[in-house]
Amino acid sequence: MSELATTLPALRERIEAATSAALERSLALGSTEDSQLFLAAARHSIDSGKRFRAIGAHIGASIASNTPLADVRLDDLGAALELYQASALAHDDVIDHAATRRGAPTPHRAFGAEHAAQSWLGSSEQFGEAAAILLGDLLFSAAEEAIQRYVDTLPRHVAHAVLQRYTQMHTEVAIGQYLDVRAEQTPLNPDDPHCMKAQTVNEIVRLKSARYSVVHPLLLGATACEAPEQFLQDLEAVVHPWGMAFQFRDDVLGVFGDPSETGKPAGDDIIEGKRTLLLTLTWANASPPERAFIAHAFNKPRSERAAYVPDLREIIENRAMLLHEGAIASLVIEGNAALETLSRNHDLPERSVAMLKELGEVLTRRKS
Amino acid sequence: MSELATTLPALRERIEAATSAALERSLALGSTEDSQLFLAAARHSIDSGKRFRAIGAHIGASIASNTPLADVRLDDLGAALELYQASALAHDDVIDHAATRRGAPTPHRAFGAEHAAQSWLGSSEQFGEAAAILLGDLLFSAAEEAIQRYVDTLPRHVAHAVLQRYTQMHTEVAIGQYLDVRAEQTPLNPDDPHCMKAQTVNEIVRLKSARYSVVHPLLLGATACEAPEQFLQDLEAVVHPWGMAFQFRDDVLGVFGDPSETGKPAGDDIIEGKRTLLLTLTWANASPPERAFIAHAFNKPRSERAAYVPDLREIIENRAMLLHEGAIASLVIEGNAALETLSRNHDLPERSVAMLKELGEVLTRRKS
Repeated sequence: MSELATTLPALRERIEAATSAALERSLALGSTEDSQLFLAAARHSIDSGKRFRAIGAHIGASIASNTPLADVRLDDLGAALELYQASALAHDDVIDHAATRRGAPTPHRAFGAEHAAQSWLGSSEQFGEAAAILLGDLLFSAAEEAIQRYVDTLPRHVAHAVLQRYTQMHTEVAIGQYLDVRAEQTPLNPDDPHCMKAQTVNEIVRLKSARYSVVHPLLLGATACEAPEQFLQDLEAVVHPWGMAFQFRDDVLGVFGDPSETGKPAGDDIIEGKRTLLLTLTWANASPPERAFIAHAFNKPRSERAAYVPDLREIIENRAMLLHEGAIASLVIEGNAALETLSRNHDLPERSVAMLKELGEVLTRRKS
Repeated sequence: MSELATTLPALRERIEAATSAALERSLALGSTEDSQLFLAAARHSIDSGKRFRAIGAHIGASIASNTPLADVRLDDLGAALELYQASALAHDDVIDHAATRRGAPTPHRAFGAEHAAQSWLGSSEQFGEAAAILLGDLLFSAAEEAIQRYVDTLPRHVAHAVLQRYTQMHTEVAIGQYLDVRAEQTPLNPDDPHCMKAQTVNEIVRLKSARYSVVHPLLLGATACEAPEQFLQDLEAVVHPWGMAFQFRDDVLGVFGDPSETGKPAGDDIIEGKRTLLLTLTWANASPPERAFIAHAFNKPRSERAAYVPDLREIIENRAMLLHEGAIASLVIEGNAALETLSRNHDLPERSVAMLKELGEVLTRRKS
């Protein structure tokens, strides 16, 4: 088994323990009888998840410092990344009016159910949304406390660089999320082959996925180990294209994924009206009647879109899948080539190269 | 004119310029054609306001360092406080479904109106709320960037103390807001004279008002000037009771205030179902028929409560106003006595004592 595979189970456990400990430090500031439901929701919000971003930070540190992954210690940095992710998800679920996440009720639904069960005054839905917005704010603060505790352990110039990237990440996520929500609201004009812009989609994927989920975590880990600027740039050149490819792979699942595997409805991205590279490529290459059909489906209310999924899948399959696979393949190649440069410029040991290669495969391999 | 009065206009201008400059640094990270509406909303959200918290930080620094208020320089700390306040207000307005703030449409209403004007897809209301939640997140990040830039200018142990208090403030606000929202949903039981707890109300006022609006800003300014721990404790003993009294004064306006002066509907706190000390004192001292009437009114949906305002005002006036004035007066006295201790223990110069006295009057004097 590879170093990544053998280390991951114990690493995940350590990340979970650190995240939980960091959260408890924040919650201790406001534990009263009346706040228990709120604090329990905060604890529940970090119960599950892949710990993807905290793991990324550990990989970045392992490579930058040539330390075995199992020996990297970034407890509070990992906790900050996971707490911030929980914060973003709480707000995201309110924004999407999502009912479940990872098989459990979303925070706003759980708060709303408690409101109804207690026969409290007013609207259960509005109470649920209010409490979930505040839950996101609480988790954001808990993340802040964790990152500050973490940078206290670093030399000052390193602390500065870590905090700067960490904060930039939040700003980018907020703007990326806004662009994503906004794009979904834009009507499609069947007479305009250019009304869906690859540039807009790329900016959303860059901010929300490539940088947030991959580049920033790895580079935070590497920055914490005082990796030189050239190393950071060369590492970013490897993982940025892989991070883009990661999202594009996910977009294929969003249209063609099996609900029993994805945990989401069939054609979920179509129902959500999500603007993806896959859809942009379809639009650019569709015939006028196909374009009219796509516009007709996407301009319908969300609740009516499921009926169009089978026909849209066929159009997407015919018009865009090959091009889309080509785009992913070229990003994979771009990252692989950059890995050779990184390895050569910085005398990367074989174990680091192997770990990055494995990360690249995890990020970009076909899932369906 | 006093030092405070002569300095405030120029200080406010400096705070506004610093807040705006800090925000622009964050917005530069994500300025695209599609993000313009979002970035404009962020700019608009800091257009107005009393700059109360930033001014508090400057007063705290002036007193701790015995520097004339006009010479205190805390640009990025003030900006962080004002940006965080704008973030909290954006979320607060979504939570309260408020239509206007300071005479202008709230962010979620403005985004919703733009959605409707553009004939975008889906619900204008839902888009407005989504964008306003993300706007709050963006402003929170902008505040983080500002505070980090600020603490970079401080010795390391001072930076640590400032960040710790700043972050604790966010956690307290999130929990305080939750407790406030939760309390409003609790039905009143006319047979239970103890179903409204002064302890709950005090905790909400402590977290949301006394500490957030008064104690933390002043102590952040004092901490930044390396005030010793004993000085901070003695200063807190002065401004905490005044901060509580400040909110209790505001609660009187929330029931009896003139809409032409408050900019809010008559009896706004009654309509909102807000749980205040004033209401708690009324409940504890009401006759059984009065208690039944109060419960009847508060257990009605918000939209039906306005009709009960005149009768409730009369009950509150008869049962609680004297006691409530007494509670405020005793907090004022507590703060004044603590000011004597602070002044004596730390040899406060006359100008500092005068400035604190004036602050105390601004915070606690009758407004109606």
